[in-house]
Amino acid sequence: MKFIEGGITAPAGFKAAGLHCGVKTNNSDKKDLALIVSDCPCAAAGTFTTNKVKAAPVYLSMKNVENGEAQAIVCNSGNANACAPKGEENAYKMCVKTAEVLGLKPEQVLVGSTGVIGHTINIEAIVKGIPEAANKLSADGGLDAAHAIMTTDLVEKIAAVEFELGGKTVKLGGIAKGSGMIHPNMGTMLCFLTTDAAVDKAVLKKILKECVAVTFNRVSVDGDTSTNDTCLILANGMAGNKTVSGEGADYDALKEAVKAVTQTLAIKIAADGEGATKLMTCTVSGAADEAKALALAMSINKSPLVKTAMFGSDANWGRVLCAMGYSGEDFDPEKVDVGFKSAAGEIEVCRNGRGLDFDEDKALKVLSEKEVVIDVKMFEGEGTATCWGCDLTYDYVKINGDYRT
Amino acid sequence: MKFIEGGITAPAGFKAAGLHCGVKTNNSDKKDLALIVSDCPCAAAGTFTTNKVKAAPVYLSMKNVENGEAQAIVCNSGNANACAPKGEENAYKMCVKTAEVLGLKPEQVLVGSTGVIGHTINIEAIVKGIPEAANKLSADGGLDAAHAIMTTDLVEKIAAVEFELGGKTVKLGGIAKGSGMIHPNMGTMLCFLTTDAAVDKAVLKKILKECVAVTFNRVSVDGDTSTNDTCLILANGMAGNKTVSGEGADYDALKEAVKAVTQTLAIKIAADGEGATKLMTCTVSGAADEAKALALAMSINKSPLVKTAMFGSDANWGRVLCAMGYSGEDFDPEKVDVGFKSAAGEIEVCRNGRGLDFDEDKALKVLSEKEVVIDVKMFEGEGTATCWGCDLTYDYVKINGDYRT
Repeated sequence: MKFIEGGITAPAGFKAAGLHCGVKTNNSDKKDLALIVSDCPCAAAGTFTTNKVKAAPVYLSMKNVENGEAQAIVCNSGNANACAPKGEENAYKMCVKTAEVLGLKPEQVLVGSTGVIGHTINIEAIVKGIPEAANKLSADGGLDAAHAIMTTDLVEKIAAVEFELGGKTVKLGGIAKGSGMIHPNMGTMLCFLTTDAAVDKAVLKKILKECVAVTFNRVSVDGDTSTNDTCLILANGMAGNKTVSGEGADYDALKEAVKAVTQTLAIKIAADGEGATKLMTCTVSGAADEAKALALAMSINKSPLVKTAMFGSDANWGRVLCAMGYSGEDFDPEKVDVGFKSAAGEIEVCRNGRGLDFDEDKALKVLSEKEVVIDVKMFEGEGTATCWGCDLTYDYVKINGDYRT
Repeated sequence: MKFIEGGITAPAGFKAAGLHCGVKTNNSDKKDLALIVSDCPCAAAGTFTTNKVKAAPVYLSMKNVENGEAQAIVCNSGNANACAPKGEENAYKMCVKTAEVLGLKPEQVLVGSTGVIGHTINIEAIVKGIPEAANKLSADGGLDAAHAIMTTDLVEKIAAVEFELGGKTVKLGGIAKGSGMIHPNMGTMLCFLTTDAAVDKAVLKKILKECVAVTFNRVSVDGDTSTNDTCLILANGMAGNKTVSGEGADYDALKEAVKAVTQTLAIKIAADGEGATKLMTCTVSGAADEAKALALAMSINKSPLVKTAMFGSDANWGRVLCAMGYSGEDFDPEKVDVGFKSAAGEIEVCRNGRGLDFDEDKALKVLSEKEVVIDVKMFEGEGTATCWGCDLTYDYVKINGDYRT
């Protein structure tokens, strides 16, 4: 397997487009409508937010993907169409218009929205934009689509891989948007994946679920689980491989590819968390089991005090132990080691739950890098988990202090 | 019952002192050692952090208060003595020295610490400071003690009430410190209460627990539950009332007083949360029961996105509904109303889960006040809960980005 360029339009038979239709009013030239279409019907699967308050397009996509089939995805940014007047009606209008323009049935179209909650969506602009987007569809349109789903994201999030499946070369690509209101429980913000692999729809659903669990569900920017989280995958079979219909070598290869792309996108989301200056990777190893390692790692990962310390490049490891302590997991604090790692080196700061007399200058150097690892070692068993987040900064507060205007 | 001046030294027979002994090195004149002493033995009770990682003084106070008796409290700020080398040994030295100087047994002394985690405490400075503090003990020393337990707190937190108990005038006072790493689960930061009421120790413990549950346990600054949270109460009986030994009118009166003082201190902690510019009160009414109302209110109260919106005086109520949605509670989002209230008026922004076309200028005016109420109405039942927090600001990030230096 190797990483390649091209994102969602790297796989054979996928076209995409992204343009500005008018949902984003404050930044009039920013793209706000994305369209992703396969040349032929696809196996399809999705995972969605666990938030009790779900946006209208989430309900619609959940319904349309239930039979494991779809052929297109339409998505706007700038308005989440959540808790908004006429939400269901407008989400359905997006779906119907897309189907009409592409010559598909409405149930073959999946819908996504992201942006502010509670405002009526500018459906006229979207309905007018959909035919324009269809006209712009191209095998180079992946980047435009990636831009069109961004909100406060600073960089587009794209990944694609190429791998072998039963002697055939298969490609898999994805785009995602993240930034704020990010915390697992489905979960991702928006992520759209495409592949030309031939794969049974039940298998596709299983692989997607397994990969989301260890990638997007291990990212936290701020502990807020969004109303709109959606991850969709379309597999059109154009690579010509023998259909992946159950577990085995092909299943493993496809899953490895999905995991590679979703993990890459998840890490990009963490690194580009709202206001973030650095990517924070938190690894807990030696816990009794993986679930426990994950609970401890996520508790560290979402602690505002750990996140602000990372912003300040301050080796305040006591907050790491403190966050483990309120995770709800049982453990012996006196059997915990804590260290920090980065491109600038590594430093152990706590052994057996007690502070070491470490070199503060070196710690500052290690923590001043753009990518920092918090490395927690326990001595209970073999359970290991890694999750990703970012620091908590002035800019997070700035961005979210006045998001709607 | 009426509020009075004097804090912990308002009740008869209590003396206190606060001074700088040298634990705080960066602010050399700031007080860092507090001593609170009763003229006679007291009934005593405490509640402590539920964090799995507990500071050494927490374990010591838990042990010493177990028999329901104590006579003095010694507390330093500037170092939490948590995860620190020689933690137990040094906490015990604080206890023994205080007992020796006051002519008490070590088990009559309760110990608190607050400050940075993981650093060896300057026990020499404390041991030297304890006799000085004992010399300074006075019936006017409550304010000095309140100052001596502060860390990043901007204002001291003091409250006292006077009330009748079986025909006798009784007083109850308290001091607290809060600021960061504040989230219920015991829970308070440090709070020391004194009263001259005569009360059975089991009754005292019950009243304290009940009051902490609806006051300190309903405050969240940042979702981080500290390693050092401790709330202690000493009751010396000098008011001469008939001992409160079970439920009844006296029990209710004493509980009302404890609740008044703890709630006042809890609100002061929320309003003075690290970096806070405003007090945020969140009320959920009409839920199926109180537990559900509380879970929903706390989820709103700790959402970074709600807290940053409050900082920006932005009526972004979608985040309120979103935070309710990921609380884990089941409810119908279409049966939720949201409004904002303050001294500048009140405004409804969401009815039946859908945004209203509200007056943004008025909303800005309402939310620009120093004390803002988020008012959520449901239509399920009679469950109501109120909790307190603060906005999330640049200064929270600043204070915590480099706390140790």
